[in-house]
Amino acid sequence: MTARDPLRPPLPRAEFIEWLREEGASRYHDAHPVHVAMHEGRLTESELQRWVLNRYYYQTRIPIKDALILSKSEDPVFRRTWLHRITDHDGAQAGEGGLELWLRLAEGVGLERELVASCREVLPGVRFACDAYVDLVRDRSLLEAVASSLTEFFAPDLMSKRIAAWERHYPWVKRETLDYFRSRVPRARRDSEEAIEFVVAHANSYALQQKCVDALIKKTEILWHLLDCVHAACIAGAARSA
Amino acid sequence: MTARDPLRPPLPRAEFIEWLREEGASRYHDAHPVHVAMHEGRLTESELQRWVLNRYYYQTRIPIKDALILSKSEDPVFRRTWLHRITDHDGAQAGEGGLELWLRLAEGVGLERELVASCREVLPGVRFACDAYVDLVRDRSLLEAVASSLTEFFAPDLMSKRIAAWERHYPWVKRETLDYFRSRVPRARRDSEEAIEFVVAHANSYALQQKCVDALIKKTEILWHLLDCVHAACIAGAARSA
Repeated sequence: MTARDPLRPPLPRAEFIEWLREEGASRYHDAHPVHVAMHEGRLTESELQRWVLNRYYYQTRIPIKDALILSKSEDPVFRRTWLHRITDHDGAQAGEGGLELWLRLAEGVGLERELVASCREVLPGVRFACDAYVDLVRDRSLLEAVASSLTEFFAPDLMSKRIAAWERHYPWVKRETLDYFRSRVPRARRDSEEAIEFVVAHANSYALQQKCVDALIKKTEILWHLLDCVHAACIAGAARSA
Repeated sequence: MTARDPLRPPLPRAEFIEWLREEGASRYHDAHPVHVAMHEGRLTESELQRWVLNRYYYQTRIPIKDALILSKSEDPVFRRTWLHRITDHDGAQAGEGGLELWLRLAEGVGLERELVASCREVLPGVRFACDAYVDLVRDRSLLEAVASSLTEFFAPDLMSKRIAAWERHYPWVKRETLDYFRSRVPRARRDSEEAIEFVVAHANSYALQQKCVDALIKKTEILWHLLDCVHAACIAGAARSA
C-alpha cells in the first residue's frame, strides 16, 4: 500500500495529529542556523536588524493570507472564529496589533520604523517565499490553507525560548521591545488548537490528510527559506566588512 | 476628446461623485419590475418567498467578497475600517449578524430556515450573477472592487421605502421580521461614505475614474439580473398555477 493509495482509509485522529506534528517539528525553523545563532547570542546587532527587517515582510502577509482563508469559507461560524487573527495583527484600533508591535521591535533594535514599514529593503528571496505563502493559501483548498497555518503548533515554545535568549544575550534591546513575542505565546496556542480541530474534522480521507501534511511541509519550507536568505545576506555582509 | 482619452485629466471630486451617482442611480434595481411590484404590494406570498430565498445567496456572497477586498489591501488602516463589514453579516457571535437576520426574514415570510440556508433551491442565473460579483472583486483591482460596493449609496432609501411598503402591504409579515432592512439603513450609509472617500482618494486619473464607473455599472447589472431571474421564475410559476 503506497502513501498515495486512494483506497487507504484515513488515519485515526491521534495518528494523523502525530503525523502532522512529526513532519512539522522535524522541519520547523527553530533548528535553522540563523535561529540557533540568534538564541545562542551569536548574532551581531546588524544581523538581528536584518532578520527583523526581512521578517516584517512575512508579518505583513499574515492578515492578507488570513483574509484569503476567510474568503474561502462558506461557514459564518468558521469565519467568526478566524476573523480575530486579522484583528490580532492589524489591531482593533491605531497603535495596536502585531504589525505595530513588530515595528516597535524594529525600533527597539535600532531600525528606522519607516524603512521597515516600507518593505523596500526586503531581500528578493524573502519576498518570493512570503508571496509563495499567499499563493498557496489562494490556490489550494480551505483545508490545505488552514493546515499550512499549523506551524503555530510549534511557535509558543520558540517564542518563549526567544524571549529568554534575547533578555540574556541582547541586553541592549529594551524589555518592552519583546512584546510581540510575548503576545504570540497564548495566541499561537489558541490559534493552533482551533486550526487542528478544523483540519482533523475536515480531512476525512487519507488523500486529504496527505494534502494537509504536504501543505504544512510547504509552509515549513517557506519559513526556512526566509532564514536561508537572511543567512546568505549576513555571510555576504560579514565578508564585506572583514 | 473621447471618454477613454489617456491624457484626459481626472474629474474634480464633485463631478466624479456626480458621475458615479448618475450611472448608479439610473441603473439601480429599485426600478426593477420585481421591486416595483413588491413595493406596490403586488407580490404574492410565494413570490415574496422566492425573492427572499434567492436573495439569500447574494447575502452569503457579501462576507466572502469583503474578505477578498481585505486580502487585496496592503494597508492595516484600510483593513481595520473594512473588517466590520464582515462582522456586520457574520455577527460578532452566534445568533447575530445580517445573515442570521435574513434567515429570520425567511422564516417570517413562511420559509423553512434550513432550506434557505442550504441555498439548494437558488436559481442558476442568480448563482451566476452573484458568483460574477465575487469574481469581479477577486479579479479586479482593490479600487474597482471598492467602487463596485457603491450601490450602497442608494440602499438606505430603498430600505426605508421597503420597510414602509411591507408594513403596509404585507401585514402578515411580523414587524421584527424586517430587522434586516432596518439594520442596513445606518450601516449602508456609513459604508458607502467610507467607500466613496476611498474611491475619490485613489482614482487619481480619468482612466481610473472610468474603471470605477465600469465596476459600479457591472454591479448594478448583477443586482438587476438577480431580479430578472426571480421575475422569470415568478411568471413561470404563475403560468403553472393558472
